[in-house]
Amino acid sequence: MSDRDATPSDVPPPPTGPRPKATSRGRTTVPVASDNSDITDVPEFEFFGLPGPRGLPPLTEYLDILEVDMMRKPNESNKIQHHTMYYNSDHLVVRRGQEFQVKVTFNRPYDSARDKFALEFVIGSSPQFSKGTYIPVFPTKERQSSWEGRVVSTSGNEVTMGITPEANCIVGKYHMYVAVATPFGIRRTRRDTSRNLYILFNPWVAADAVYLDDETEREECVMTEIGIIYHGAYDDVSERNWNYGQFNYGVLDACLYIMDKAAMPITNRGDPIKVTRKASAMLNSRDDEGVLVGNWSGDYTYGVAPTSWTGSTDILLTYASSKMPVCYAQCWVYAAVFNTFLRCLGIPARVVTNYYSAHDNDGNLKTDIILDENGRIDRNRTKDSIWNYHCWNECYMSRPDLPPGFGGWQVVDATPQETSDGMYRCGPASVQAIKHGQICFPFDAAFVFAEVNSDVVFYSRRRDGTMDPVKVNRTHVGRMVLTKTPGELTRRDITDQYKFSEGSAEERTVLEKAEEFGCKREKSDPTLADVDVVLPTLEISVGNDFELNVEFVNRSDQERTVDAYISGNVVYYTGVTSSEFMFNTPTVEIKPNKTVKELVEVESKIYMRDLVEQANLHFIVTGKVKETGQIVTAMKVVTLRNPKLTVEVSGGEKVNEEMMASVQFTNPFTFSLEGVSIRMEGPGIMSPKFKYYSLIPGGSSLTWTEFFTPQRTGTTRVIATLDCPALRQVSGQVSITIKP
Amino acid sequence: MSDRDATPSDVPPPPTGPRPKATSRGRTTVPVASDNSDITDVPEFEFFGLPGPRGLPPLTEYLDILEVDMMRKPNESNKIQHHTMYYNSDHLVVRRGQEFQVKVTFNRPYDSARDKFALEFVIGSSPQFSKGTYIPVFPTKERQSSWEGRVVSTSGNEVTMGITPEANCIVGKYHMYVAVATPFGIRRTRRDTSRNLYILFNPWVAADAVYLDDETEREECVMTEIGIIYHGAYDDVSERNWNYGQFNYGVLDACLYIMDKAAMPITNRGDPIKVTRKASAMLNSRDDEGVLVGNWSGDYTYGVAPTSWTGSTDILLTYASSKMPVCYAQCWVYAAVFNTFLRCLGIPARVVTNYYSAHDNDGNLKTDIILDENGRIDRNRTKDSIWNYHCWNECYMSRPDLPPGFGGWQVVDATPQETSDGMYRCGPASVQAIKHGQICFPFDAAFVFAEVNSDVVFYSRRRDGTMDPVKVNRTHVGRMVLTKTPGELTRRDITDQYKFSEGSAEERTVLEKAEEFGCKREKSDPTLADVDVVLPTLEISVGNDFELNVEFVNRSDQERTVDAYISGNVVYYTGVTSSEFMFNTPTVEIKPNKTVKELVEVESKIYMRDLVEQANLHFIVTGKVKETGQIVTAMKVVTLRNPKLTVEVSGGEKVNEEMMASVQFTNPFTFSLEGVSIRMEGPGIMSPKFKYYSLIPGGSSLTWTEFFTPQRTGTTRVIATLDCPALRQVSGQVSITIKP
Repeated sequence: MSDRDATPSDVPPPPTGPRPKATSRGRTTVPVASDNSDITDVPEFEFFGLPGPRGLPPLTEYLDILEVDMMRKPNESNKIQHHTMYYNSDHLVVRRGQEFQVKVTFNRPYDSARDKFALEFVIGSSPQFSKGTYIPVFPTKERQSSWEGRVVSTSGNEVTMGITPEANCIVGKYHMYVAVATPFGIRRTRRDTSRNLYILFNPWVAADAVYLDDETEREECVMTEIGIIYHGAYDDVSERNWNYGQFNYGVLDACLYIMDKAAMPITNRGDPIKVTRKASAMLNSRDDEGVLVGNWSGDYTYGVAPTSWTGSTDILLTYASSKMPVCYAQCWVYAAVFNTFLRCLGIPARVVTNYYSAHDNDGNLKTDIILDENGRIDRNRTKDSIWNYHCWNECYMSRPDLPPGFGGWQVVDATPQETSDGMYRCGPASVQAIKHGQICFPFDAAFVFAEVNSDVVFYSRRRDGTMDPVKVNRTHVGRMVLTKTPGELTRRDITDQYKFSEGSAEERTVLEKAEEFGCKREKSDPTLADVDVVLPTLEISVGNDFELNVEFVNRSDQERTVDAYISGNVVYYTGVTSSEFMFNTPTVEIKPNKTVKELVEVESKIYMRDLVEQANLHFIVTGKVKETGQIVTAMKVVTLRNPKLTVEVSGGEKVNEEMMASVQFTNPFTFSLEGVSIRMEGPGIMSPKFKYYSLIPGGSSLTWTEFFTPQRTGTTRVIATLDCPALRQVSGQVSITIKP
Repeated sequence: MSDRDATPSDVPPPPTGPRPKATSRGRTTVPVASDNSDITDVPEFEFFGLPGPRGLPPLTEYLDILEVDMMRKPNESNKIQHHTMYYNSDHLVVRRGQEFQVKVTFNRPYDSARDKFALEFVIGSSPQFSKGTYIPVFPTKERQSSWEGRVVSTSGNEVTMGITPEANCIVGKYHMYVAVATPFGIRRTRRDTSRNLYILFNPWVAADAVYLDDETEREECVMTEIGIIYHGAYDDVSERNWNYGQFNYGVLDACLYIMDKAAMPITNRGDPIKVTRKASAMLNSRDDEGVLVGNWSGDYTYGVAPTSWTGSTDILLTYASSKMPVCYAQCWVYAAVFNTFLRCLGIPARVVTNYYSAHDNDGNLKTDIILDENGRIDRNRTKDSIWNYHCWNECYMSRPDLPPGFGGWQVVDATPQETSDGMYRCGPASVQAIKHGQICFPFDAAFVFAEVNSDVVFYSRRRDGTMDPVKVNRTHVGRMVLTKTPGELTRRDITDQYKFSEGSAEERTVLEKAEEFGCKREKSDPTLADVDVVLPTLEISVGNDFELNVEFVNRSDQERTVDAYISGNVVYYTGVTSSEFMFNTPTVEIKPNKTVKELVEVESKIYMRDLVEQANLHFIVTGKVKETGQIVTAMKVVTLRNPKLTVEVSGGEKVNEEMMASVQFTNPFTFSLEGVSIRMEGPGIMSPKFKYYSLIPGGSSLTWTEFFTPQRTGTTRVIATLDCPALRQVSGQVSITIKP
């Protein structure tokens, strides 16, 4: 060995030269196409072998392409027959599995015996026939590709071609070339954005995985732009209007951008299972810089309060242009924007609301409430919460990846919850699988099962730290699941699609099935106390004083004495307690088989200073029966009524005639409202509008007027919200029918 | 309204004040405990109610705790009975579901009738009884918690307590308090790191989900530190020795840190399904700043070449101290470090190698190879690749989340592949489910199924871009699956655990089942050509010239003429072609039922300049039979033999006696090797050592000697690797038996 290496070193020398870039060299032959805006141009002339020494012979005897008409106007047959006439897009938008037509003008009449041409459809970078990203379509029966083609008609130099994309083809933005074959090579049109076209999912075609055989449902879940999202409490349901805006200008491109941002392989984009699962991850900003940032804190200084949005359009267009997550969302905002995404791509979708949704951070079927030895809630040790309500989406599709019977409605959820397989995404989970406890099937069925089926377990904690279950409430969670009735403005109770009726034999079987798959339930069944506590349902406006009548019902034949603890709390809609604004500790004596009412006066001044958004008060009564040592409990959420916005429209109510919309609001309080945002929009008639008021003094009124011009006929709504730190979730709307 | 707000604005004012921090306020009551190094101290004295005006009475009559002995020495019964004596840790390390003992010395003898004490085990922040993160253990039968406790013996003031953690308890680092109950409150020991203890999975206990009822397998898959990982080709298998080092100092803490870094909820850490799934995502740096950065490029300037590592210890300790991903890994490095993680936590695990592993970027069961009209491979259009081999892990556990029958070995894979449910993680997928085509069950069974069952489809591409399948090879992919034989240094073929034998009725049924669940296969069955091409198996050393004998076998009764294309390529082990170093285009004439041999001379100078790591040459023969137009193909990977390192040890071969290990290497080439790293280590005897040589001239030799002192008895190995940009994957090892 030479001198130079006679002294080896214990450490390698520092590297020199530039740091290498991340590369796929040695690992994959080409990067996977995962961006629908990436383009690989197909050459204008593709030679068969090298041209000879004299160059190419003149190609005058072969067809030349003079003009291509994509027949893309909203009133042409393509968009009408494909239910895509509402998309505000200059391009052709069609659905897969169904024929559409384009018109090609050559330099002379087409002669099927001697002329050979094809329409070529390409998507993404490095298009390939075997991957379904390059599809030639031929005009003759003898030569057929995966997409069927035919000459519909010829007229002079014009050929009208019919093209039927495969019913499972990739969904996204394609480009179309016209190619003429000559013995020397292929002559093609140049790339021109006017020949871009969008191909969507098709719920109207039986061969498509998203086929939905019900025209009313399709009209609602694909074509309807304005919806109702339910919130409040199961015994006091409130409504929120939302403009999904799936047909608005730019929304379709924004939806495709979401998949591009996720670097979702183009070849997976024809599969609604993969598309919806990926989107459930991408709709929230966790993990992947997705669309919406969640915020439940009450401080929305650096963004828009979740209660302030009126529709999805602003959110999606902002995301696509800024390429940054949009601030802020809570569950219904995630569900609403997800709904836009799904309907826009043609996957039937609806928003559902689950009342008393278990927020299960353990993957088991228990929500634990810890009481101290006197029967009072031990707030330091009660870590679980039950959301007053939670919104998610259902989308409709077949499930070829599962055994038969689990197609149909599937739960997907974009709200970032604590654990769903460790990731901030959820679904698609078959609603049928959830109902039948078949929670072993992907994706996340066990998680959704717990959201509608958990038990609430009250524990009594001993001084030494051990705990005994004292009451198990098996009916509280998943009390009701609601969605909008298709074609109507009413609500539809779909609880029975998620579970069998409480107490039925089927319900027991299902719970046992779920336990087989590892769901942990509370096994103990503490004897029920013979005293019931009943809390009334109340309808109270924000700022009013009211009375709470707590009933103690003695079902025994002996006298009973209850040391009770009546607690009033301000809670978030997530069930998390913000503060306890009052408590009473009466001792209630009840004669055998009698009822005693305990009256609690609640003054507005004691809750108003603590009130958080959505104005939920949570009353909890716990207590211990002296004679038996048994524990009694009762809980009730009271959602205080907010003041309303008045929305009015006036004018011709005709297409292309200017009209006027006004929002009126009166501050009903004695104090001023500061930093007030008002939003207004209406699908097909008014794009999102915004107004900011720095101050609205107590008792004063405002009126905001906007002009607008309806673009199309039909019945729709103008919806408005008002939002400020001291008062959230104020809304109003008005229906309007536009005539031709 | 006042003047102040008479002029509303179309935009909100810019926010003022500090930007709010991300908060869980309003969303969850407390953040989910997800860090095993987080600590919530339990108070030294916990009062029952407030002390009276005179303060606390003297507590002299109650037990005082003088000393706690965790019985944590390697030779004490705890570590021996729990199979944890090899862990190089000062702390107690035990396994769940099995009793361990601790000794408490009080100030006077313990009297079970009047004294009340408990051992309290806590893990993570905000420990809670109902979450299994706070567990009191009592000495009496009357009072039992979820973990059983008993007094094993008393002697003077000393009590030996037996504690049996639940067989499904959380795995990780706990702290133990001793608490004495008095009527005024609880008196406790202070936190002291000497009472930290680790509780691991327990394959020796039937109630544990990772129970493995085979002592030979347990010894191999939990206790064995040094392993063999197979690579090369199915007909020319090579071995790689690896020091898993799961018992080395700091490795257990590093494994817990990986879960902390992933913010995995503490409460999920007792479930081997969740632990292994999370770890499969965390072992690679994609998405989550995990342990290892993948690099297949051949340029490893800024890190360690994947072929250079000898064990996992360096990698895990570097990750835990730098808290940054470690550079670089390829599949066997991911699998090896994952294996360390699993064995370290007590989950039985092994590394397996799948030969010809389909790298399937589409989720279907096809690998496409595109030929042009003359039967030559069209490299621009062939985008798929088949990895020469791919390594993953199997771990052993029950699967309560699935129907019965799918427990046992589960595939987990930490190598970041293109798509596994869109994420860089894979598994656990039941091997049984894969074998039986039950790929509807989580997690990622369909993905692994494709890796062992894909068809290779050769397409002939027409000029117009359409393609016809001309040959389907249904046996190439998943040719063989190997793992090390437990307790021996030989290999074990476990292909039959993944699939039924090729061509059997069961195999057909399974493939049909998989198709039901959405796997797409090539349906066409092109007629086989009546000419076969056969390539020989070769054993060639790097730098040698050799001959390739290509046989053309005519199975017909007529003369056949083949226009052949014989191509020699340098490929990565991922099957990606780096360069074509030679091609021949013979026309071969074969008489009826005869064989013709076509001899191809391969000179070393034409491949040496292009050679990439792992020195794989890939020969492809394609051709067209003139008489029939049929396509013939054959492929063969030749892994060139590298020079070896010679490792020798000398000395007493006794515990605590110094010994010497030397590595010798001769550069067999005519050129110099530059930037050479040599690594050496041996479990239980030598920690990882490193030496760097800037230059080794052609033909020259080096010897590197290190001293070491064996720490324990038994048979083990010293393994060494040599690595430089021009020559990778050179290794050597020697066995050594240490006597007491």
